[in-house]
Amino acid sequence: MPFTHFDEKGAAHMVDVGDKAVTKRRAVAEGSIRMEPPTLAMILGGEHRKGDVLGIARIAGIMGAKRTADLVPLCHPLSLTRVAVELEPRAESSRVYCSVTVETSGPTGVEMEALCAVQISLLTIYDMCKAVDRGMSIEGVRLLEKEGGQSGRWVRGV
Amino acid sequence: MPFTHFDEKGAAHMVDVGDKAVTKRRAVAEGSIRMEPPTLAMILGGEHRKGDVLGIARIAGIMGAKRTADLVPLCHPLSLTRVAVELEPRAESSRVYCSVTVETSGPTGVEMEALCAVQISLLTIYDMCKAVDRGMSIEGVRLLEKEGGQSGRWVRGV
Amino acid sequence: MPFTHFDEKGAAHMVDVGDKAVTKRRAVAEGSIRMEPPTLAMILGGEHRKGDVLGIARIAGIMGAKRTADLVPLCHPLSLTRVAVELEPRAESSRVYCSVTVETSGPTGVEMEALCAVQISLLTIYDMCKAVDRGMSIEGVRLLEKEGGQSGRWVRGV
Amino acid sequence: MPFTHFDEKGAAHMVDVGDKAVTKRRAVAEGSIRMEPPTLAMILGGEHRKGDVLGIARIAGIMGAKRTADLVPLCHPLSLTRVAVELEPRAESSRVYCSVTVETSGPTGVEMEALCAVQISLLTIYDMCKAVDRGMSIEGVRLLEKEGGQSGRWVRGV
Amino acid sequence: MPFTHFDEKGAAHMVDVGDKAVTKRRAVAEGSIRMEPPTLAMILGGEHRKGDVLGIARIAGIMGAKRTADLVPLCHPLSLTRVAVELEPRAESSRVYCSVTVETSGPTGVEMEALCAVQISLLTIYDMCKAVDRGMSIEGVRLLEKEGGQSGRWVRGV
Amino acid sequence: MPFTHFDEKGAAHMVDVGDKAVTKRRAVAEGSIRMEPPTLAMILGGEHRKGDVLGIARIAGIMGAKRTADLVPLCHPLSLTRVAVELEPRAESSRVYCSVTVETSGPTGVEMEALCAVQISLLTIYDMCKAVDRGMSIEGVRLLEKEGGQSGRWVRGV
Repeated sequence: MPFTHFDEKGAAHMVDVGDKAVTKRRAVAEGSIRMEPPTLAMILGGEHRKGDVLGIARIAGIMGAKRTADLVPLCHPLSLTRVAVELEPRAESSRVYCSVTVETSGPTGVEMEALCAVQISLLTIYDMCKAVDRGMSIEGVRLLEKEGGQSGRWVRGV
Repeated sequence: MPFTHFDEKGAAHMVDVGDKAVTKRRAVAEGSIRMEPPTLAMILGGEHRKGDVLGIARIAGIMGAKRTADLVPLCHPLSLTRVAVELEPRAESSRVYCSVTVETSGPTGVEMEALCAVQISLLTIYDMCKAVDRGMSIEGVRLLEKEGGQSGRWVRGV
Repeated sequence: MPFTHFDEKGAAHMVDVGDKAVTKRRAVAEGSIRMEPPTLAMILGGEHRKGDVLGIARIAGIMGAKRTADLVPLCHPLSLTRVAVELEPRAESSRVYCSVTVETSGPTGVEMEALCAVQISLLTIYDMCKAVDRGMSIEGVRLLEKEGGQSGRWVRGV
Repeated sequence: MPFTHFDEKGAAHMVDVGDKAVTKRRAVAEGSIRMEPPTLAMILGGEHRKGDVLGIARIAGIMGAKRTADLVPLCHPLSLTRVAVELEPRAESSRVYCSVTVETSGPTGVEMEALCAVQISLLTIYDMCKAVDRGMSIEGVRLLEKEGGQSGRWVRGV
Repeated sequence: MPFTHFDEKGAAHMVDVGDKAVTKRRAVAEGSIRMEPPTLAMILGGEHRKGDVLGIARIAGIMGAKRTADLVPLCHPLSLTRVAVELEPRAESSRVYCSVTVETSGPTGVEMEALCAVQISLLTIYDMCKAVDRGMSIEGVRLLEKEGGQSGRWVRGV
Repeated sequence: MPFTHFDEKGAAHMVDVGDKAVTKRRAVAEGSIRMEPPTLAMILGGEHRKGDVLGIARIAGIMGAKRTADLVPLCHPLSLTRVAVELEPRAESSRVYCSVTVETSGPTGVEMEALCAVQISLLTIYDMCKAVDRGMSIEGVRLLEKEGGQSGRWVRGV
């Protein structure tokens, strides 16, 4: 099975989805950013209105989902019917965990939008905390599940 | 030391860099995408003009660096004087490794641009390979080094 | 009745419109920019091909309508089927009055697009006249009417 | 004194600022959105982490400042060294008041960026509250002061 | 028959397409860039992985198709279901020939998207070769055929 | 002399301009769109305020110049100090001729911005006239002259 983004001569193209059914699509992606414990403590402190890092990262992720087709060359432009970004500080592993759910009704899936939103959310956390912790690392950005369309439901194995 | 992106009342702002010296700035970031070995083999096969996944990911990363301030809410808009994206397939760990160097002459650093370029390059690889491997995972997106400006040189420890 | 843009935990999200009917939607918004009488006279003078301030403001408003979802964080991306910007110099109150009609066929309304177009049109007038009149003021940007969708027709009261 | 955005034949152009001195520029703009008292009460209630309308509007304004030259046709692209958005609920007049300060070091002023940020902040408040109050009105978007450059300091009269 | 982009008073608007049928639309456009023979030879040399000018121009064209409504003021925003860019070096006339096919399912045609993609592809070739050949010229950018919608099929005459 | 946009391994990059002198740069580009004589007559008729095709195309060109680095993958982002678009109907050859002058003060030239503005201006004319003349053709988009920087002045030969 060859990559679908290339034609028989190897030239990249935006794949024809014109004959695909318009169905309800949903994708969930996740990722996290690992940081020094004091950095996480500062983020947690800020949740009470003094510097809401997570609130800003959530907004950045939602806006990032909408820019996916501008950023990923062969990605189809899509309207989205729902974007939800969850950010969860996890003290035990000293990280902020992010999961994003994106939905649409269309001829292609929305996993790229979900992954892009995770990335931009975590990148925004990096930006806001970098003055105190340059060594933060973004880990495990990947698809959790996906449904709708011809290929049906996919759920990440354990 | 508080987060610099918030004022004394906790309101987010784009930090004042008007009094910072305009100096030459440079940042290097890295990351990788882990995949099934057959996926990596297909990417490698395509380098000989039949579906150049890495060439497209490189372009996406360079363009992504230029969009950073559009995506990250509190990031300063900057002109960039150099962007170089390196993509290296690593068969032993079944991944594509990415490193990006960004340079500018300005009042703030370019680590956000380097990290953003790494993310968009790897996301583009995901997009082009997702039809054959949905489970790929983006790992270890982080700063490697940074120089220029008041805070001087920073190199990631081992 | 709580704000719909927040979930039960108070986190912002792009509201799910996946189950809303796709119907024809229409919104009309208005606003105006108040200026010194000589400024308005100059604008009127320019309509005869010597500096068409209103023609440019109209184009900016139409293009602005298309950028709404890029600018307003929780706004759904939408395709638009019609945008019309009307600009009317009103000598008696020394202002340019703007009204914008936007239409689409979709699951959400287009009042944000209409309001955004009014704002960008008026901002463009400010830009072109600011060298002669810095004190101009943008007033009364608001929705006039809206129809389509579950909530039906809404018309501004007197 | 003719409009500077048109040449002698009346054709619009982006004015030549190549010979202007690069100096520190600063502009402050203001505006407000008037709403029903219960709407303002809901916004105030949300500040304690349950739906932070003002936090999101602030971010939208900062990002909007960066998009000004994309939206206003004849506006020069500029890098910005500082953007600060203040949002202040005013119960006595049932509105949210917004003021924005923008700074840069460059050959042109930043009043357009400050005004654009005010508009996008207030538009975002409209978006988040429109489900409960369609009749809100954006008022008095205008320049408060401006300094730097050949034309010197300008302060709004009383 | 008047221009459709203006109303009866001569004001530009985005034409109402709300009552047009949603049908499958397809457009093909072409164009070419003429250069010095040694420039073309360098491009051809690079196809074997040492500087893939055409691969990059193809990506730029595909991404350009997606930006059309951002660039052309009265153009309707559309989702696209397929974009294919073909680039063919033609030694006998010392040029690179480009043709682009765009498809969608919608109420308006996609000829603007096809033409825009041709332009951006050829402009990207110019950018990458300009250091060795400043005199290159972009020629014959035009529609080849178009189908779908009320006006039916149109094919360029000979 | 190899293409500068590729490194020694053939990978594309955004060329390092960090050591280039910041000097005043200027570029002039041209192009034209050929059409049926009645189409040109309609455009000319519209100049008197009933459908100002050329005024809109001029604005689109100016805005297009500002988007160049978003569209051309390896192009450096630049601020521009001047953009002027001239559009001249030429009845004898049944075309609209366009020339664009762009200036900046920076480390790289602005020929890409000038060429991009010509393309977007002409594409906008196509858009507004396509309902009456699908066969229009964009011709001779090329650099006329360029000055500033290390490579000095370049003027197109006859």
